[in-house]
Amino acid sequence: MKQRIETLLRHMDQQHMESILITSPANVYYITNYFTDPHERLVAVYIRKHEDPILVLPAMEKADAKNAGWKHSIISYQDHENPWEMLSKVIKQNETIPKTIGVEFNHFTLDRQTILQQILPQTEIRQAEALLAQLRLIKNEYEYKRLKTAAELADFGIKTGFEAIKEGITELEIVAKIEFELKKQGVQAMSFSTIVLSGTKTASPHGNPSLKKIAKGDLVLFDLGVVYEGYCSDITRTVAFKSITKEQDRIYNNVLHAQQKTIESAKAGVAVGKLDQVARNAINSNGYGDYFTHRIGHGLGIQTHEYPSMHSDNTLPLQENMCFTVEPGIYVPNIGGVRIEDMLFIKESGPEVLTQFPKELRIVD
Amino acid sequence: MKQRIETLLRHMDQQHMESILITSPANVYYITNYFTDPHERLVAVYIRKHEDPILVLPAMEKADAKNAGWKHSIISYQDHENPWEMLSKVIKQNETIPKTIGVEFNHFTLDRQTILQQILPQTEIRQAEALLAQLRLIKNEYEYKRLKTAAELADFGIKTGFEAIKEGITELEIVAKIEFELKKQGVQAMSFSTIVLSGTKTASPHGNPSLKKIAKGDLVLFDLGVVYEGYCSDITRTVAFKSITKEQDRIYNNVLHAQQKTIESAKAGVAVGKLDQVARNAINSNGYGDYFTHRIGHGLGIQTHEYPSMHSDNTLPLQENMCFTVEPGIYVPNIGGVRIEDMLFIKESGPEVLTQFPKELRIVD
Repeated sequence: MKQRIETLLRHMDQQHMESILITSPANVYYITNYFTDPHERLVAVYIRKHEDPILVLPAMEKADAKNAGWKHSIISYQDHENPWEMLSKVIKQNETIPKTIGVEFNHFTLDRQTILQQILPQTEIRQAEALLAQLRLIKNEYEYKRLKTAAELADFGIKTGFEAIKEGITELEIVAKIEFELKKQGVQAMSFSTIVLSGTKTASPHGNPSLKKIAKGDLVLFDLGVVYEGYCSDITRTVAFKSITKEQDRIYNNVLHAQQKTIESAKAGVAVGKLDQVARNAINSNGYGDYFTHRIGHGLGIQTHEYPSMHSDNTLPLQENMCFTVEPGIYVPNIGGVRIEDMLFIKESGPEVLTQFPKELRIVD
Repeated sequence: MKQRIETLLRHMDQQHMESILITSPANVYYITNYFTDPHERLVAVYIRKHEDPILVLPAMEKADAKNAGWKHSIISYQDHENPWEMLSKVIKQNETIPKTIGVEFNHFTLDRQTILQQILPQTEIRQAEALLAQLRLIKNEYEYKRLKTAAELADFGIKTGFEAIKEGITELEIVAKIEFELKKQGVQAMSFSTIVLSGTKTASPHGNPSLKKIAKGDLVLFDLGVVYEGYCSDITRTVAFKSITKEQDRIYNNVLHAQQKTIESAKAGVAVGKLDQVARNAINSNGYGDYFTHRIGHGLGIQTHEYPSMHSDNTLPLQENMCFTVEPGIYVPNIGGVRIEDMLFIKESGPEVLTQFPKELRIVD
């Protein structure tokens, strides 16, 4: 925590950013080791060189934040109090008011901007999101271990899901079984709503599990992840139940081939967009290009989706200790969809695939 | 849907707001009947009088939105495309550019503001959040029915949780059992992460379930809710396992008394803040005021937490067809916490308590 604050201050210095107000739950967690989803309430960290960092949060969470390891100042407020006024007073107790303050432009809302301008009318509001994203982009050993364990638990989730498939079971019952077994392992939260889709419903990349029953000939698609000690995993597997048509088979093997080619190309120095292109070219060349309707993947860490977005135009080069997903998919209306997704971690020697569940085509009985 | 758009346009007219760009998932759902959590991707509805409303969303979700009933224009984009440019082109095809555009100040971020100003440099950006919150504040019969069913499912969740309690079972296993049984009933999503806390952990209003085992003498606190056809429920019950101390008993009955008094006072015309005061006075008079560290409740509907915030200073009068929670709590460090929460719906005749699970003190064996 101490080291992260120091690194942050160094980066702020380089950008002539005198102070920063961090409000997104993920970045607050990154800096404080305290995770909270405050809904509409304000949770914020204010940091400025030579001043003690301040965590602003609801009174009822003060003890939790301390237990998580926060050793600096805390401003805690009751629901009828105004945390902005309280923060303003503390900032103004210092000898000087900061000339610049960084906030996360992708999280800071217009109503908060209005308030911040009221309490610090002379202070210029600056974009701080990229700075924080850069810090989080490169993972250390501590984070690597947590991502790896999160990936192992995701593998276990897929295994549980595959074993649960039987004639007549509903998609939601399979979701329930997966989450039940994961919670028994101590998993406190899924990293997103577990997806189990079957039959033609698999043709929607973002469909919702329902009371639809699994039937012979269905493709069954699983997309899930867990949060393990603050870090997220994300895996997708698709399986056939009892039988498969020639076209479904062809789709499956196209996706698998595209995914494998993409993983092979994932090395430090290669542009992020190149990975998308590799997958897209492979899928295009087999005539399914119109049915691969999303990017190849996304970074992940404290959030399931974080920087970078792995779309075709992104020129950011891959670097050692980056973690991201590779998840090509083909979705043909009325036929079905297949997606295969793994988590990759870039090592000096090349990509390490953190999710390990087998992915050759399986027809479960 | 048609009616909601017409009502919205009427309210916009009254406020001289020529156009609106809605981006929060809950309000997008309210207007389109399509719910999506787009993470960092843009999903937006653009509405202006005499023009066909436009839904902007990722290509992979286009079919889902149509299936949900959206009959107006759609701009769908691939991940490498810029949806703002596409929207800009369509807006500029019209004879005139709107002079004003409303956005939700509590959701619209600074980076989106920057882009919006670039594509519509002559258009004034206005606060539209209150206008939308006002529309959603008063529920109709359709919404009432969904809230009632969601509340019934929450009751069922509490019943399942109570029945699962036994010596040595972990908090997370109880969570898993509750969610398993609810999913079997067809519940697709919980309205927030199910909370089961035990022993002194109950003293944290926002603690996380863990592998802690339930033991004799523990208070066990359940806080959960489901999403039923787009509408959220929220209930809290606290129970003692095998035995209870005198102080825990006193805390329990204080909370129960405060909750009952608050419910009795919840009538159309009464200020929202008055409810908080009623509960707070009841708890203060028994010496536990310092341990009631949050507001009495919050509105709910499409979101678990929505307008209004039921804190002591809120002068908004209760109106017929409002739905909100009443949830006093007392949290004494090292002793334990008790919260009792119900969902209320204001009828002409008075408050209807939607959550019905019994709340007199129970000591389960």
